[in-house]
Amino acid sequence: MPAIDDHAKAAWNTLAAVRTQAPLVHSVTNLVVTNLTANVLLALGASPAMVENVEEAGELAAVAGSLVINLGSMSAARTEAMQSAVLAADRNGTPWVLDPVAVGALSYRSEVARGLLAHRPTVIRGNASEIFSLAGGDGGGKGVDSTLDPEAAVGAAQRLARSTGCVVAVTGKIDRITDGDRLLEVRNGHQMQTRVTGMGCSATAVIAACLAATRTTGFDRLATTTQALALFGLAAEHAAVAAAGPASFQVALIDALFNLDEARTLAGVRISPPPSESRPPAP
Amino acid sequence: MPAIDDHAKAAWNTLAAVRTQAPLVHSVTNLVVTNLTANVLLALGASPAMVENVEEAGELAAVAGSLVINLGSMSAARTEAMQSAVLAADRNGTPWVLDPVAVGALSYRSEVARGLLAHRPTVIRGNASEIFSLAGGDGGGKGVDSTLDPEAAVGAAQRLARSTGCVVAVTGKIDRITDGDRLLEVRNGHQMQTRVTGMGCSATAVIAACLAATRTTGFDRLATTTQALALFGLAAEHAAVAAAGPASFQVALIDALFNLDEARTLAGVRISPPPSESRPPAP
Amino acid sequence: MPAIDDHAKAAWNTLAAVRTQAPLVHSVTNLVVTNLTANVLLALGASPAMVENVEEAGELAAVAGSLVINLGSMSAARTEAMQSAVLAADRNGTPWVLDPVAVGALSYRSEVARGLLAHRPTVIRGNASEIFSLAGGDGGGKGVDSTLDPEAAVGAAQRLARSTGCVVAVTGKIDRITDGDRLLEVRNGHQMQTRVTGMGCSATAVIAACLAATRTTGFDRLATTTQALALFGLAAEHAAVAAAGPASFQVALIDALFNLDEARTLAGVRISPPPSESRPPAP
Repeated sequence: MPAIDDHAKAAWNTLAAVRTQAPLVHSVTNLVVTNLTANVLLALGASPAMVENVEEAGELAAVAGSLVINLGSMSAARTEAMQSAVLAADRNGTPWVLDPVAVGALSYRSEVARGLLAHRPTVIRGNASEIFSLAGGDGGGKGVDSTLDPEAAVGAAQRLARSTGCVVAVTGKIDRITDGDRLLEVRNGHQMQTRVTGMGCSATAVIAACLAATRTTGFDRLATTTQALALFGLAAEHAAVAAAGPASFQVALIDALFNLDEARTLAGVRISPPPSESRPPAP
Repeated sequence: MPAIDDHAKAAWNTLAAVRTQAPLVHSVTNLVVTNLTANVLLALGASPAMVENVEEAGELAAVAGSLVINLGSMSAARTEAMQSAVLAADRNGTPWVLDPVAVGALSYRSEVARGLLAHRPTVIRGNASEIFSLAGGDGGGKGVDSTLDPEAAVGAAQRLARSTGCVVAVTGKIDRITDGDRLLEVRNGHQMQTRVTGMGCSATAVIAACLAATRTTGFDRLATTTQALALFGLAAEHAAVAAAGPASFQVALIDALFNLDEARTLAGVRISPPPSESRPPAP
Repeated sequence: MPAIDDHAKAAWNTLAAVRTQAPLVHSVTNLVVTNLTANVLLALGASPAMVENVEEAGELAAVAGSLVINLGSMSAARTEAMQSAVLAADRNGTPWVLDPVAVGALSYRSEVARGLLAHRPTVIRGNASEIFSLAGGDGGGKGVDSTLDPEAAVGAAQRLARSTGCVVAVTGKIDRITDGDRLLEVRNGHQMQTRVTGMGCSATAVIAACLAATRTTGFDRLATTTQALALFGLAAEHAAVAAAGPASFQVALIDALFNLDEARTLAGVRISPPPSESRPPAP
């Protein structure tokens, strides 16, 4: 387990790799966040493309650096496009991230999500209710919002990671990321994120961009996912300083992603093992 | 008819109820305003969800606190989803608001709107052209914009309210709200609202959130709708103070909804009976 | 060829015409930019409407002042709606602008684009890769982003303009606009435009609004298209002055379109023939 400083340095290297490579990130995402997701990816340094029709989704996924499958807007046609994109990613070894929006709360997408799990996403990022549901529990959830504390979903995340072979990230006040074996925490972020739509979807897109930029260089999915969440949360912290409310916060967040530099990253990234692991055993 | 001060106090109580309850507001809305609507609802204190496919729309509407049906983006598939959501709202006594975007100007949606009216929306909010058309007249209209003065639509609104049993709101420089019997006016708002897309759609969403938060506490649809429009218009007034143009105005409007407090609400809400009713009869 | 000052004066007259007439601009555009496009058009002074279903697209296009067909989001259903809208524009002599997003990179939309070309768009606006591909070459392109320098596409643009009878605009650091015979350049704009999604789509919408406002007054498609791109680029320059990053830049850009006045326009518009044409022949 690297020291905290190493996490911050690695996060900066990942961000720098995104900016240098400008990887093509293909998002099949929901209708609420398309514009936000594209702008988050552009601010980060990636090249976003949103293609969600069955005629083209596979063709684009085959040449993309990574793929986002976000279940926020569903239909039979979008499901077909998602499956086509995932198959293309499978064939090409393209990393892809599943964002199981409102899974558990709605039956149709829960079934689609189970089908997609069989194709082993590289990473799954959701809130506590979504991850709990995906792992087979009753996650509660109110529409797209979680009604569970993220900590309560850690066990579910670990089971889900072990049974699927995916990295699983449960985001909330503290983000927890696990590959079923290791567990990391991110303590970046700001409560204003709960008042802007698409913050989870944006975090997912940032993970995908970071996976695309690091896939050829000693690819560590757990580390990269954790770094991505820390970078996004750190930008949120900077954005909150001058924000007058949720909309000026969102504007400032995208600006902050664009302006994130090495000094701020090294000083601000807060990745750590969970407290129980970092404490010495009781005497 | 309560005094003006009572309207302001009641509006504040309604806003406080939204913030306390964070009701789930299900929007089947158009593709232009999904993100804006979600952010308006979050800033207000509600929990938005946008689900518009036939597989899920009824399932979500059945558990939502209220439902928005906005006709801005149509298709056969969306019509089916809207009908499914409305049936679920019907069965569950869920208040729902119809936003008849561009009805009158386009034939297909005008027919869909007539079908939806049979399910008696709790509230209908539109511009003058839309309400005039829905009441059976030729409302003119240029695309999604009204070419009629709201005052000209008051009679149509009252006829529509009486024939359908709905509360009808005609928004514009002055908003008029009627249940066919009583008539109220809201003199909040700012002309910059005409230069930002989705302001009417946002007002509709705010009405839905307020209906959801008050449905169990002496539910008065006319009063709640009027308060919602006053709150939204008041936020627009605050937003306009520092805005440099329509985009900074929109950012400031969402921030202002988030920051609206009791003092500003009590001082700023301008709900009144129409001048003709408030004047004493001529001697 | 008018002098540079005449271009600026003509650009101002075109903007003034948009503001006076508030033409209805019908956009069948992609899911990422619907909100942005509507707000750009409103800030400019036009009246936007986004209708993209086959039941209504033709009906709206028949009464619109101009039409945008943007290929950023495709599906069989949208293709049908696009074709219906284009046929209605054809029948009514309505100017329309084709934005061939990612044509060349994706097969399905490339085929759709070829079919639409047969209906002779008034103007085609794309990046270098898209225009190169549309003209029959291999344009490269990474998803929706160009990998070609705009200058390299000038020959392709001229061939495309001559073979189709359209005005063709290749936008980039310098915009080149040609009717196959004349060639103009626009040197307005700011590099921050490459970090915000939908900037090309917005430029397309501004062209459509300007075409709608000038179609009855000595209509010169090449001049109007060039003026539209200069106005949009000039607003971007003003926006960049105070922007802290891409999101505040986008907000400022919409505000700047709204606030663009005669003095700024006359001082800032940079339209010229290409350097090779403006230089006197060597002695």
